[in-house]
Amino acid sequence: MAVRAAVAGASGYAGGEVLRMLLGHPEVEIGAVTGHSNAGQRLGSLQPHLLPLADREVAPTSAEVLAGHDVVFLALPHGQSAAVAEELGPDVLVVDCGADFRLRDAADWEAFYGSPHAGSWPYGLPELPGARAALQGTRRIAVPGCYPTAVSLALFPAYTARLAEPEAVIVAASGTSGAGKSAKPHLLGSEVMGSMSPYGVGGGHRHTPEMIQSLSAVAGERVGVSFTPTLAPMPRGILATCTAKARPGVDAAAVRDAYEKAFADEPFVTLLPEGQWPATAAVYGANTAQIQVTLDPAAGRIIAICAIDNLAKGTAGGAVQSMNLALGLPETTGLPLVGVAP
Amino acid sequence: MAVRAAVAGASGYAGGEVLRMLLGHPEVEIGAVTGHSNAGQRLGSLQPHLLPLADREVAPTSAEVLAGHDVVFLALPHGQSAAVAEELGPDVLVVDCGADFRLRDAADWEAFYGSPHAGSWPYGLPELPGARAALQGTRRIAVPGCYPTAVSLALFPAYTARLAEPEAVIVAASGTSGAGKSAKPHLLGSEVMGSMSPYGVGGGHRHTPEMIQSLSAVAGERVGVSFTPTLAPMPRGILATCTAKARPGVDAAAVRDAYEKAFADEPFVTLLPEGQWPATAAVYGANTAQIQVTLDPAAGRIIAICAIDNLAKGTAGGAVQSMNLALGLPETTGLPLVGVAP
Amino acid sequence: MAVRAAVAGASGYAGGEVLRMLLGHPEVEIGAVTGHSNAGQRLGSLQPHLLPLADREVAPTSAEVLAGHDVVFLALPHGQSAAVAEELGPDVLVVDCGADFRLRDAADWEAFYGSPHAGSWPYGLPELPGARAALQGTRRIAVPGCYPTAVSLALFPAYTARLAEPEAVIVAASGTSGAGKSAKPHLLGSEVMGSMSPYGVGGGHRHTPEMIQSLSAVAGERVGVSFTPTLAPMPRGILATCTAKARPGVDAAAVRDAYEKAFADEPFVTLLPEGQWPATAAVYGANTAQIQVTLDPAAGRIIAICAIDNLAKGTAGGAVQSMNLALGLPETTGLPLVGVAP
Amino acid sequence: MAVRAAVAGASGYAGGEVLRMLLGHPEVEIGAVTGHSNAGQRLGSLQPHLLPLADREVAPTSAEVLAGHDVVFLALPHGQSAAVAEELGPDVLVVDCGADFRLRDAADWEAFYGSPHAGSWPYGLPELPGARAALQGTRRIAVPGCYPTAVSLALFPAYTARLAEPEAVIVAASGTSGAGKSAKPHLLGSEVMGSMSPYGVGGGHRHTPEMIQSLSAVAGERVGVSFTPTLAPMPRGILATCTAKARPGVDAAAVRDAYEKAFADEPFVTLLPEGQWPATAAVYGANTAQIQVTLDPAAGRIIAICAIDNLAKGTAGGAVQSMNLALGLPETTGLPLVGVAP
Repeated sequence: MAVRAAVAGASGYAGGEVLRMLLGHPEVEIGAVTGHSNAGQRLGSLQPHLLPLADREVAPTSAEVLAGHDVVFLALPHGQSAAVAEELGPDVLVVDCGADFRLRDAADWEAFYGSPHAGSWPYGLPELPGARAALQGTRRIAVPGCYPTAVSLALFPAYTARLAEPEAVIVAASGTSGAGKSAKPHLLGSEVMGSMSPYGVGGGHRHTPEMIQSLSAVAGERVGVSFTPTLAPMPRGILATCTAKARPGVDAAAVRDAYEKAFADEPFVTLLPEGQWPATAAVYGANTAQIQVTLDPAAGRIIAICAIDNLAKGTAGGAVQSMNLALGLPETTGLPLVGVAP
Repeated sequence: MAVRAAVAGASGYAGGEVLRMLLGHPEVEIGAVTGHSNAGQRLGSLQPHLLPLADREVAPTSAEVLAGHDVVFLALPHGQSAAVAEELGPDVLVVDCGADFRLRDAADWEAFYGSPHAGSWPYGLPELPGARAALQGTRRIAVPGCYPTAVSLALFPAYTARLAEPEAVIVAASGTSGAGKSAKPHLLGSEVMGSMSPYGVGGGHRHTPEMIQSLSAVAGERVGVSFTPTLAPMPRGILATCTAKARPGVDAAAVRDAYEKAFADEPFVTLLPEGQWPATAAVYGANTAQIQVTLDPAAGRIIAICAIDNLAKGTAGGAVQSMNLALGLPETTGLPLVGVAP
Repeated sequence: MAVRAAVAGASGYAGGEVLRMLLGHPEVEIGAVTGHSNAGQRLGSLQPHLLPLADREVAPTSAEVLAGHDVVFLALPHGQSAAVAEELGPDVLVVDCGADFRLRDAADWEAFYGSPHAGSWPYGLPELPGARAALQGTRRIAVPGCYPTAVSLALFPAYTARLAEPEAVIVAASGTSGAGKSAKPHLLGSEVMGSMSPYGVGGGHRHTPEMIQSLSAVAGERVGVSFTPTLAPMPRGILATCTAKARPGVDAAAVRDAYEKAFADEPFVTLLPEGQWPATAAVYGANTAQIQVTLDPAAGRIIAICAIDNLAKGTAGGAVQSMNLALGLPETTGLPLVGVAP
Repeated sequence: MAVRAAVAGASGYAGGEVLRMLLGHPEVEIGAVTGHSNAGQRLGSLQPHLLPLADREVAPTSAEVLAGHDVVFLALPHGQSAAVAEELGPDVLVVDCGADFRLRDAADWEAFYGSPHAGSWPYGLPELPGARAALQGTRRIAVPGCYPTAVSLALFPAYTARLAEPEAVIVAASGTSGAGKSAKPHLLGSEVMGSMSPYGVGGGHRHTPEMIQSLSAVAGERVGVSFTPTLAPMPRGILATCTAKARPGVDAAAVRDAYEKAFADEPFVTLLPEGQWPATAAVYGANTAQIQVTLDPAAGRIIAICAIDNLAKGTAGGAVQSMNLALGLPETTGLPLVGVAP
């Protein structure tokens, strides 16, 4: 019997990508698709790439509309997920693509989001040590931020294997869809094409505490993070360049070995052969991550680079992967392994 | 029992896209992947987005390697398909993504390609009147050119319904993958980003006689074509703007009606609701075409616009769609209906 | 003594480009820079590329602020120029980058703009026959639309030399800056990168009557125009593909000859050597137009293609060129002949 | 009397940009333009944006052709500059845009370039402490690499003011023109559009020792550098994100103060107002650098970000700026302060 899924926030980029993933999922039947300002419109005019759903009408986001589904994906603005989840009841699987339930520390949440902490849910990055167990059978999932997905995948093997000092320096480039679909002047095509620019510099980006949380958990000590995100002239994709000082005595073979072990059995994460480096084009549209790592002997630093599609593995693909685990389906069910390139 | 398929020219853009389509096809098992200058290399280094094939080695293109498959896709330079097809024998389904067998008129072939005519095979654009019948059960398929796919879909209803004068004026923009993967200075990213430029202007593009052939066949009279292709700063996609003078007495309702009838039952071609226009982003990676048509009352012209993905519906998707027909499989088997956007 | 110039609408793309041009003009001193919603802001935060003006504050657009300048450039929304011009008085040179005074026919204006006709001013496309005489000494200039600039340059020689039938079919691609700086969802970088799409199809684009006006004037008869604009994934540039049926007996030599004569003495318009085609990259940032023309013998059509920078020759450069004529300065003073490429 | 300048390597990106800069220089007359494989061609077909030089023929690069100029710009492959310079004699100003004379340490040169060290010339980054004095009157200039230009500008104030620990972590994104004009598959538009990818990771990029040299010189001690370059989908521009641990006791005010002092009198380098961050679009085509700096209090790191145009300030603009100093001209003569945006 099919899993019946609803998507709240279906007209945005995250919601559209969840629908794209669900359309490829053999066990899922798409129920309600809801929105706020776009309620009443034909989905085909808002998401013209989702051909099989073109004639669906966007319903208003409400408890009535979302009731009666096995899974509800929330792609809502920050702060709205708790109320919706409560109304849906404990038996419905609620997958929150927003930030509300990612951080375990209330002080972190308040410092970065400026509102009361709603709590924390199992974290939907199955590749992290211990994450799968927490996701199996859960009815609440906090989908990670796109940057923390890329960064955590790139760096956790260095910390689980105790190869790196607990201070990471990270610079990541993201496609513009990461900034969402609301029209803001600095996100106009005229502004972003041909331009690279940083934002949220100096520790202020809201994904920073999430990275610290995940890396500290695997390291067993607090890992400091200097994180600089940049906006790149492409619609999708994150390339995260993550570096940390190697602990004394660590050599290239140890680094390679730790990363090979970490990803040997992962269906969606590839440690590339030595000499080949990730490119975001290779993961375009796929629920995959490509990783490469090296040790810079002169600088004494480990450099791990991860490419993901911010909307796919970075949001909607990761969400569906976690849903599979929660529902007891094979983890890879319905998820694209193949990117669209060139 | 699975259909076993080989792909010759697997390291290029067309070959890579055929592989991407076949990876999503539930009835196909991918056999040999072959190349010329890249023989011996790991496919993962040439097509890093094709994750499940990463460890395959590119074999040399030869009759031995290609033997023993049910279907062989040829993505080879012009002039090489006939010899390969002959060696494969009449029982193997040969799907030629090149131009060799597209034109029925030997004089046209020689005028535009400058070499002896190899003949013509059933034309792999199932949506054209009569095409499906010719494709069912065939063992030879000539996959249309990418521009003729977009242009024929956009204009054939105007000619079958006798709405348009037999002179079409077409301007189309193509993404750069249409020019292939060989490194030429004018195709460098530095040259194409931020720039639009025409090429093959004045009737010289090799896809022109192919458009004339298809449109004339449906019109029952020779249709003249003025075709101007342009190179657009994007990796994929064709937007074909196709216009023709309306015959006397033709009104907007007749145009709309003809197009609605033409595409009512087509699984891959969408006539958009009035007021919505195609965008190449909406068909990115999908085997779909989006079409809109209008009548400009002041200019007295029908304007039909079609967006396709040049590599998907324009090449590899169309090839697999035709393969399905040839093999007696449901026509839509394994083909993506959903684009990757934004 | 320097010409003192004000720019109203300085925070938009047209206004910013006028300022860029004026910064390179040896006879101009930049006075007031005004805006509406951005009044009070530092220009450096709105137009960070205009380094020498970074510390200027945007003043509110008002008669007081604009008074006391020799030239006032208006880059305002439609319908606002007449009132401003009246307040400035007849001795001030008013250069209107908007549409208000482009059309001579009131019925055309009302049909396409839906508001009362304000009148018409000398048309700022000096290369058109008779245009320079009308611009010399004038105190009012209507800067042409960007598409009509490209199209008129591409086609007028065919009509002055009576080579073409009076029905033109035009498809043009424009960079996104042509759509302005107000934030609309379909202009987001995420939407436009990687995508081509048409708009205003079927005769509805407001630049259509302007093309008809200019081409009909040089042809001495009404020239019908089928015009389809498309949005291309680049910030700047227009590539206009303009075709018209050749009159009986017209041959390639006659076409070449007419175009060579038309542009022989033009400082900003280049007829490229035969075989070389325009690219928008080659005119990026320059007040230049590149044109190529050919006769398609099979289709019997003249195909003239013009590349301009929509903001430079298509708006601000053309505006300053016309200002030079109005003020009795050498026409080329201060205008860039060199593009920025790659 | 005009300075007569020749450009060797005129058909490449660096050579083309030198010509663009020289065309705007009021004291320079452009003499010979030379090339290797393109000798004999019309410059208009190779560099169609350089309109005033369109009819120049590319001469072969030889001592005879380059003789008789006051200045010779070399934009040649590595290893060819020494021989040319020697033939030109000591009185000709030779400006080498290549790497041959950038490194003072022969061992560094040999380790990174694998050929014998040719020596070192005054380093053409006038903003570095002491650099102007070395450039005044010189007849030999080594133009810095594009990445070292951005990185040195971003970080030297932190080291002159002893604010930062001597270990810098740098991630930079570059437009594709930095990779030159030779056609390589990974630089095709199809490959780079929509994709970010790293290269030269782990300390291997040849610009690394150049950064170490400059930063160590101002720091008075060896500064280690971890440098990761990435290729961004844009034709021009470098965004360098440069971080280093703050020394104990350093606060935000001290950082701001040091950067304000460092750039207070620089005509081409702007420290942006607090809260505004650099974007490569703002320096497109200009000989300018935009810099912002902050202290991340949680991570304890100084983060300095610099945007330049790799071809302008990063190569040709810096070259002409240094030429001005060498010839005793005002340093800013003929150099663009205004970028082309959007």
